[in-house]
Amino acid sequence: MLEKVDLKNKLKKGEYSAKLAELGLQLGEVQRRAREEQRPIIILFEGWRGSKRSEIINTLMQNMDARGFDVLSSMELIDVTDRPAFEFFWNNLPGLGEIRVYHRSWYYLRNVHQGHSCETSDMYSYNHINSFEKVLTDDNYIVIKFFLHLSENAQKKNMTDESSLGYAIRSKYLSEHASEGKRADYQTFFKQYDEMLSATDTENAPWNVIAADSTRTATINIMENIIATVTAKLEAGKVDAPAPAREDVKYDALSKVNPAKEMTKEKYKEKLAKYQKKLQKLQVEMYKRGISAVIGFEGWDAGGKGGAIRRLTSGLDPLGYQVFPVASPTVVERNYNYQWRFWIHLPKSGEFSIFDRTWYGRVMVERLEGFAKPNEWQRAFDEINEMEKQWADAGMVVCKFWLQIDKDEQLRRFTERQNTPEKQWKITDEDWRNREKWEAYEDAVNEMLVRTNKDYAPWTIVEGNNKYYARLKVMKTVIDLFEKRLAQK
Amino acid sequence: MLEKVDLKNKLKKGEYSAKLAELGLQLGEVQRRAREEQRPIIILFEGWRGSKRSEIINTLMQNMDARGFDVLSSMELIDVTDRPAFEFFWNNLPGLGEIRVYHRSWYYLRNVHQGHSCETSDMYSYNHINSFEKVLTDDNYIVIKFFLHLSENAQKKNMTDESSLGYAIRSKYLSEHASEGKRADYQTFFKQYDEMLSATDTENAPWNVIAADSTRTATINIMENIIATVTAKLEAGKVDAPAPAREDVKYDALSKVNPAKEMTKEKYKEKLAKYQKKLQKLQVEMYKRGISAVIGFEGWDAGGKGGAIRRLTSGLDPLGYQVFPVASPTVVERNYNYQWRFWIHLPKSGEFSIFDRTWYGRVMVERLEGFAKPNEWQRAFDEINEMEKQWADAGMVVCKFWLQIDKDEQLRRFTERQNTPEKQWKITDEDWRNREKWEAYEDAVNEMLVRTNKDYAPWTIVEGNNKYYARLKVMKTVIDLFEKRLAQK
Repeated sequence: MLEKVDLKNKLKKGEYSAKLAELGLQLGEVQRRAREEQRPIIILFEGWRGSKRSEIINTLMQNMDARGFDVLSSMELIDVTDRPAFEFFWNNLPGLGEIRVYHRSWYYLRNVHQGHSCETSDMYSYNHINSFEKVLTDDNYIVIKFFLHLSENAQKKNMTDESSLGYAIRSKYLSEHASEGKRADYQTFFKQYDEMLSATDTENAPWNVIAADSTRTATINIMENIIATVTAKLEAGKVDAPAPAREDVKYDALSKVNPAKEMTKEKYKEKLAKYQKKLQKLQVEMYKRGISAVIGFEGWDAGGKGGAIRRLTSGLDPLGYQVFPVASPTVVERNYNYQWRFWIHLPKSGEFSIFDRTWYGRVMVERLEGFAKPNEWQRAFDEINEMEKQWADAGMVVCKFWLQIDKDEQLRRFTERQNTPEKQWKITDEDWRNREKWEAYEDAVNEMLVRTNKDYAPWTIVEGNNKYYARLKVMKTVIDLFEKRLAQK
Repeated sequence: MLEKVDLKNKLKKGEYSAKLAELGLQLGEVQRRAREEQRPIIILFEGWRGSKRSEIINTLMQNMDARGFDVLSSMELIDVTDRPAFEFFWNNLPGLGEIRVYHRSWYYLRNVHQGHSCETSDMYSYNHINSFEKVLTDDNYIVIKFFLHLSENAQKKNMTDESSLGYAIRSKYLSEHASEGKRADYQTFFKQYDEMLSATDTENAPWNVIAADSTRTATINIMENIIATVTAKLEAGKVDAPAPAREDVKYDALSKVNPAKEMTKEKYKEKLAKYQKKLQKLQVEMYKRGISAVIGFEGWDAGGKGGAIRRLTSGLDPLGYQVFPVASPTVVERNYNYQWRFWIHLPKSGEFSIFDRTWYGRVMVERLEGFAKPNEWQRAFDEINEMEKQWADAGMVVCKFWLQIDKDEQLRRFTERQNTPEKQWKITDEDWRNREKWEAYEDAVNEMLVRTNKDYAPWTIVEGNNKYYARLKVMKTVIDLFEKRLAQK
């Protein structure tokens, strides 16, 4: 893509100032419209070192409306190179009607990662990058990507500014981290960049390669580009991304499972103590190795999720895990893509995040109650598989439990809750309504269990009529998965 | 406070299990009531190393409702020792109706700070600690503080558990950071703890010293204590904290200032270029020294805040600063104390946070429009002084600008905005309404400028009728303050 860029074009100073003022007004206008229409906008800048990203972004800032417009400094990226890909950007996603400018982005992290790590890592594969961008654009985020291109001469000339903040930052970074090694030459980078651009130049998030030998020309081009792109997206309005092709099959996973298993209290107590000790040990080992885990719990209402989580955590040190109960999204959470509220709770190095209900709400309650449109929940199977793959590729243990009870057992438990004063708060009208839709839920759950059961993020169906049995099975499964992961390098 | 604690008391196992189950139910009940009544609760645990904080907190978690109940691992504190005191806790404050448990808190950071730093630091002074807690309790946060006390024997016995997660964390931490030095003996710690407890045992946030030689007894006491405290606070309902005594004086700062100053465009252009270069240099020096700055802008509507900020930042690299426009609080922001939305935007090391309107809204618009109660805005003068002192004690440059124009100049600018199509969005009915209250605002501004003008966080009144003059004065003031700060060690 870089070959065809004309680097000679150059604006005169008088022309530039006049254009700048005019475009600034238009940009402000476009910005206010986007805010009114509640469209989130991401504008990212990549390109050669020395391509004057800072200067260009500052000119943009001087000419835009500061409200709802945040520039994310690439300084922040220095601290997140070890974190799962995209986590930082999820944490700093623009909300509805906001603009976020990334002064370097996931493409930069991809490069850092490739440069610093001896192992090949899949964290920032082109596939993950394209998928990440697609999740956003399918959700009507406007994503505008700029690559600032320089000729070899301009690049050499611009590189020497040792009085800049960028230089100071780089120096500090280099003295604190492993050396970046010998810098490759222009041609090597050229090829690398060109490959990256081609591989990630998608219809939904295309690259805009900007000739940046002249910073002024580049600035004007960028402003024109933002105005044109945002205007076009606003005119088109929010679009329902097409649902992916879907096989017309009857999925089944639940009918193979008999939820009634036996377990005596004595045996339970004996094993419980044993498993608690084991988990305690494993938690320390996982911490030392810096391996984290995401553990999700789903299941029928009154299926025993809470009890299973309590037993699982009973042996753990609260220093190293957090439980996140998931309910219908809050006002804040509705400001973002549905994945957001899970990404922001990813575990730190060596810690565990346990979710009581999960992102699978998308293909269960949101699907059945109409909170998600058909194209949205149908896309969600692939999106969720991809999200969990990203976590797994970052080295995490990812696993999911479905707590399976039968309809009679649920009725028994509902009735017991109803009749026990201190348990009444646990049962609501909604639970009874959901129960009436048992068969519809069963279909949705079956599809979910089949389509999102992956090596890197397996479902475990837990026979749940007997609580003792269920709790131990959960603990044992986690123990096995941790041991398996610890056995890997 | 520690002398009188009876460490001998011990529960039998049977008694314990029965109590635990009973208290767990009560705790869940109390928790749901606090959520309904939208009271945020902070529960913090300090105490001797080896006092089984983790075990106790885990038992609590097993017996409470996980919804809205978060434990903040002290693991997280390792990374924030260099940040301004309390910032981390503001970032992790419970919202309305939430419970946050701190497994170690600002008291721990105070100790780390004292241990590791050669210089005396005021960051975690008792005064700052008491003020921080008071801001919260005055705002009807429920703050419950536990100190887990151990006898010398129990402390020695408990210390040796090298298989624990806490031990693994400490080892990792010690290998990554400066050594903690030789551990002091029990008596030395005893005296230190005792002093700390006495100095911070306030009426609004008293210490609960818990005898923890027996973990079981401690757990039961803690649960009883939480139930009793929260119940009492809920029965009392939300209380209006008394307004501090207020002098009945006519404050004046504005009348001494003549907003009409002269400045030609030529002189402006010449100085502008010079100041931009200077600021660019200073930004790099500040970054290298790790000195950050908080710069706040207030002023009459159409006073020229936006223009002044744009000129100030025109020479800066966007890598190192962020502009935060402040409007009326969002749904999210209303979930927290009014200071929250400023704390979460504190600059990182060597960076600048620029606020377009600030926390002073509390004593201006919120005061005059009745969004804050009299006792709230009257408390705010002291609260804000204290907040800025905390920032300054963390080494930050803190400064504030008031852009002063006269009533005629405002009318001229309003009319110009009204008559210029691309500026119309800048003027609203609210601006005209505020203008009618000019005199009331003048009184409020005068009180603010006098009562919150401090050495460590000075106000600069900027004569604003002439925009050129005003912009340069802002830039020059920042330059001077940065140079002064850089001249200090």
